[in-house]
Amino acid sequence: MTKRQLKLGANLNGVGNSISFWRHPEVPINASVSLDFYKKQAQIAEQGKFDLLFIADGLYINEKSNPHFLNRFEPLTLLSALAGATSHIGLVATLSTSYSEPFTVARQFASIDQLSGGRAGWNVVTSPLEGSALNFGKGEHPNHALRYEIAEEHLEVVKGLWDSWEDDAFVGDKAAGVFFDKEKLHTLHHKGTFFSVQGPLNVARSRQGYPVVFQAGSSESGKDLAARSADAIYSAHETFEEARAFYQDVKGRAAAYGRESEELLIFPGIGPIVGRTEAEAEQKYQEMAELVEIEQALLYLGRYFDHFDFSPFPLDEAFPNIGDIGSNSFRSTTDKIKQEAREQGLTLRQVALRASTPRTSFIGTPEKIADQIQQWFEGEAADGFNVRTVVPGGLADFVELVVPILQQRGLFRTEYESDTLRGNLGLAVPDNRYAVGR
Amino acid sequence: MTKRQLKLGANLNGVGNSISFWRHPEVPINASVSLDFYKKQAQIAEQGKFDLLFIADGLYINEKSNPHFLNRFEPLTLLSALAGATSHIGLVATLSTSYSEPFTVARQFASIDQLSGGRAGWNVVTSPLEGSALNFGKGEHPNHALRYEIAEEHLEVVKGLWDSWEDDAFVGDKAAGVFFDKEKLHTLHHKGTFFSVQGPLNVARSRQGYPVVFQAGSSESGKDLAARSADAIYSAHETFEEARAFYQDVKGRAAAYGRESEELLIFPGIGPIVGRTEAEAEQKYQEMAELVEIEQALLYLGRYFDHFDFSPFPLDEAFPNIGDIGSNSFRSTTDKIKQEAREQGLTLRQVALRASTPRTSFIGTPEKIADQIQQWFEGEAADGFNVRTVVPGGLADFVELVVPILQQRGLFRTEYESDTLRGNLGLAVPDNRYAVGR
Repeated sequence: MTKRQLKLGANLNGVGNSISFWRHPEVPINASVSLDFYKKQAQIAEQGKFDLLFIADGLYINEKSNPHFLNRFEPLTLLSALAGATSHIGLVATLSTSYSEPFTVARQFASIDQLSGGRAGWNVVTSPLEGSALNFGKGEHPNHALRYEIAEEHLEVVKGLWDSWEDDAFVGDKAAGVFFDKEKLHTLHHKGTFFSVQGPLNVARSRQGYPVVFQAGSSESGKDLAARSADAIYSAHETFEEARAFYQDVKGRAAAYGRESEELLIFPGIGPIVGRTEAEAEQKYQEMAELVEIEQALLYLGRYFDHFDFSPFPLDEAFPNIGDIGSNSFRSTTDKIKQEAREQGLTLRQVALRASTPRTSFIGTPEKIADQIQQWFEGEAADGFNVRTVVPGGLADFVELVVPILQQRGLFRTEYESDTLRGNLGLAVPDNRYAVGR
Repeated sequence: MTKRQLKLGANLNGVGNSISFWRHPEVPINASVSLDFYKKQAQIAEQGKFDLLFIADGLYINEKSNPHFLNRFEPLTLLSALAGATSHIGLVATLSTSYSEPFTVARQFASIDQLSGGRAGWNVVTSPLEGSALNFGKGEHPNHALRYEIAEEHLEVVKGLWDSWEDDAFVGDKAAGVFFDKEKLHTLHHKGTFFSVQGPLNVARSRQGYPVVFQAGSSESGKDLAARSADAIYSAHETFEEARAFYQDVKGRAAAYGRESEELLIFPGIGPIVGRTEAEAEQKYQEMAELVEIEQALLYLGRYFDHFDFSPFPLDEAFPNIGDIGSNSFRSTTDKIKQEAREQGLTLRQVALRASTPRTSFIGTPEKIADQIQQWFEGEAADGFNVRTVVPGGLADFVELVVPILQQRGLFRTEYESDTLRGNLGLAVPDNRYAVGR
């Protein structure tokens, strides 16, 4: 068995995931609909030998949605555009099984897989947003359990369609006039609970067989779907212990389905803030925290303290002594807030801004971040990481400062092993179900 | 009013529209799934100052389908990939309203429009193939009239979603913390016969407002839909007279809806075969004709002659005298076939091959083809042409040999007027329905 190698994905998201990221002076306000912006990020990630780019998605907005969600590229068209601007990096996007047709999904991902020479990946989600149903005339948003039943069958149909053509079906014998071998074309004839799809698909398999299947739900149903049917899973955990528990849980479920550990890769999401010194990293964090409107931040802080109204207190004086208020609801959080304020001499403004901008646990010098990545990876809490940009230039900083350390430590590649996504992730090309035993 | 200018589109189709095109020695058998092939064709068309590329589509195949249909790129992902490889040419693709969700269609086309800086176009079709229903679990394929009712409402919803954001909605005032102007976000709240779609769309309008809408059906319903709601229409006519009659018909319908002639452009499809001499063009045609299997060609020929069986006759001798057979069914065709065979001394093989490979009426020297284009354009049978490749290198030949003549005659541009599709087609940026009168 070859040595386990760390995997890295870059989660690209234009003007950012938070409500206030766009306000930073270095963020172009049109980043979410700028192909140039995405091309540059993709090229930085590829210079850093990242395994993949990841584009998240959502199907419902209203006036309260975060800026990035309001006006952004549709993921499959964006991935296709990035295919030509890159050569080795994987191209992964979210698409919901609750509001799509398996024939169309199979076809568009297979097409991206062909366009990119075998670098596509599909992150299967079931749409958490209730409002999505309103945009698709479906009446009620299906409940969680039903969404996962639909997802299971949807994915089964898509994989079936991807196998429509055996890899050597297109013989192209011009002299004999034989374009393809009829024995190697297969019609799915799926009739299930939610979908009825005949096939065959009008796109062949790519060099990597078919797109890599990701899953991004941490519920019981989500973990089960991933354990049975996915190649990789995205997760979100704050601490090593939580991430490790999730890792063991999911790998155990996969084993119960007869799968080897390396057939299902686990990618926690992280939002690193890298500084050349601790102080520089801290300053970058502080800049982001200060972008939030103080009124919003006070409201947010007040929620932990039983909706206490902090607005009458002076912002730039020491955090006020409000006694035991809120200790019945979020006691561990309120205790921690009060303790930090006291120990570090924080003002009310500073406490409120910190509370509304979550502190990533991957913040500090390049060595410190590399240490933490190594700990999670070697301690079996992660096979790789989905690296989210939480400060402007965050991806470039990570590539410039952290990646070389990971490479020196022999944890991460210095050159791509392959030019397909499966090749780089160390995943086997899936057999065509019809060709097995031929 | 400025002088009318000829418009040109390039219909790209990999291994070709015919059953046998792929057998030509110069056709790469993987052309339909080769991004390099499409990039090169797109760049040739852009060098030739073409207005647009067009990608057709279909949603059902079986083992009898033409080779190009069996394994090809999905059009929207292909257009997105071509956006980055081109700078001025329009990017138009077919998408069916019978098997798609308006929210997804609006979003993907709007996204391509943003990715390309305002160069997208949607060719609205209703799926002629019965089998499509089998791939989308829809039970029966809707009948023709119903398909057009669905199309009408679908298109209305898509256009409504495209207007979700007024053009100056995104103010991006970092100091004030105002990302967008809430007055300029609009929620559609569509509840119709076939679709119920709330909105708003999560993509803004592009530099050209929204994608150019093409329509490609010549039925009464198709012509009406185009006259009311489209910017352009594709058509297929063999002769100037037929094309002119169609042109007058459609322009008249548009006028009845209060539209000016230049608001609806008519693009007949042509498959030019250009030779430096008449003989060279004829030879290119003959090469294509000979790619058809002779057995298939004899069967095809026999259909005109009341299913007469030509197979016992010697292939390389003069066309046999079979008397009056078939004169009751296709008399004008059979008379013409017999006359040509007699006058040109054709063998049975030659007659059969010619019959099964339709002769385009745009075949000959560059001057002859330019003359015919000029006649159709000036005689108001066409505003532009959708140029299909029917011999390998057909697009390059057209760009090298015919385009310069059209330019010398002042019929066609020598430089792009604009870098949006609407700009080059001379179409106005559509008003946002909510911004009118502001």
